[in-house]
Amino acid sequence: MKVYIEPIGRLINEFSKLPGVGTKTAQRFAYKVVNMSEKEAKEFADAILNVKKNVHYCTICGNFSEGEVCDICKNRQDKTICVVKDPKDVVAIEKLNEFNGVYHVLHGTISPIDGIGPNDINIKGLLNRVAGGNVEEVIMATNPDVEGEATAMYISGLLKPLGINVTRLAHGIPIGTDLEYADEVSLARAFVDRKTL
Amino acid sequence: MKVYIEPIGRLINEFSKLPGVGTKTAQRFAYKVVNMSEKEAKEFADAILNVKKNVHYCTICGNFSEGEVCDICKNRQDKTICVVKDPKDVVAIEKLNEFNGVYHVLHGTISPIDGIGPNDINIKGLLNRVAGGNVEEVIMATNPDVEGEATAMYISGLLKPLGINVTRLAHGIPIGTDLEYADEVSLARAFVDRKTL
Repeated sequence: MKVYIEPIGRLINEFSKLPGVGTKTAQRFAYKVVNMSEKEAKEFADAILNVKKNVHYCTICGNFSEGEVCDICKNRQDKTICVVKDPKDVVAIEKLNEFNGVYHVLHGTISPIDGIGPNDINIKGLLNRVAGGNVEEVIMATNPDVEGEATAMYISGLLKPLGINVTRLAHGIPIGTDLEYADEVSLARAFVDRKTL
Repeated sequence: MKVYIEPIGRLINEFSKLPGVGTKTAQRFAYKVVNMSEKEAKEFADAILNVKKNVHYCTICGNFSEGEVCDICKNRQDKTICVVKDPKDVVAIEKLNEFNGVYHVLHGTISPIDGIGPNDINIKGLLNRVAGGNVEEVIMATNPDVEGEATAMYISGLLKPLGINVTRLAHGIPIGTDLEYADEVSLARAFVDRKTL
């Protein structure tokens, strides 16, 4: 005897495909949908289909976009390009309201162990943009992990000969942390990158 | 400047309606959908719509059902009825493969503080089934909380005069727990309900 009736079992199966969602959570989600009104369920399903239909990649920066070119590329001057790994990094930086240049999304970082080389991520697009001649500074905002550092170093090696100012986000101890709880790597970096007061 | 483009913002908003899902998790889910193939996204959306279209309540027991009467009510003898609060309790019990009677889903428990009285849950349906004359035992499997206990007591008061054997799931210390870690209420119940060896 199967435990779930087919439509519910099928929906639980679909929800389990989401990251970090196990059977129990998927079951809670499915019951929530069962208890939604017809209209709510339709809006939910439409939002899923709509994302597939209307989300494209910006042909300039590689970020998600509704049109061919994203709003950021359309409306901002491109003297400063911030290079990130994923579209979600753009969201994280945009939330700060601090940066008003444009982005370049690599869609990955160089990782030989996973078989991802420089040609597998969107580096060529970045070089083309820089060749346009308008760019003054490229900020490498890849993650502070091995792959992110390697990618930043690699791209920096390509851009510096072109006379571009390549910078990297500062690493160090996070604001609000007690020194004794800071991880060793960040603390070590904080020493190396110390500033004159 | 809005942080998300409209289709993604809309999907994040939909995912945030699921129980226990905040903006960060909803964002992860939305990006997962963006990276799905067209076919996968369609299957996901279809599963949601399908649940609303094909899940009904069994007219006998109140559990979820594809047809008018659920598979359990169709295929099992109804001498023993297990009374539960929610359809998900049926799933929990079915997973045991121990019980082979039928169920009755109350869709709630009596809770005066929330304004839920005996007439707001599916007690009348239970009385009708019992009046059919076939039922020998009713197992009260409502949750072991105040509302669940009150509901069990209330229904038991209605059924006993009809000569029905009304039972309640055993409470006590969970299997595998150390006595010192068992909660006091369960430990106290384990003493009261102790069995002769």
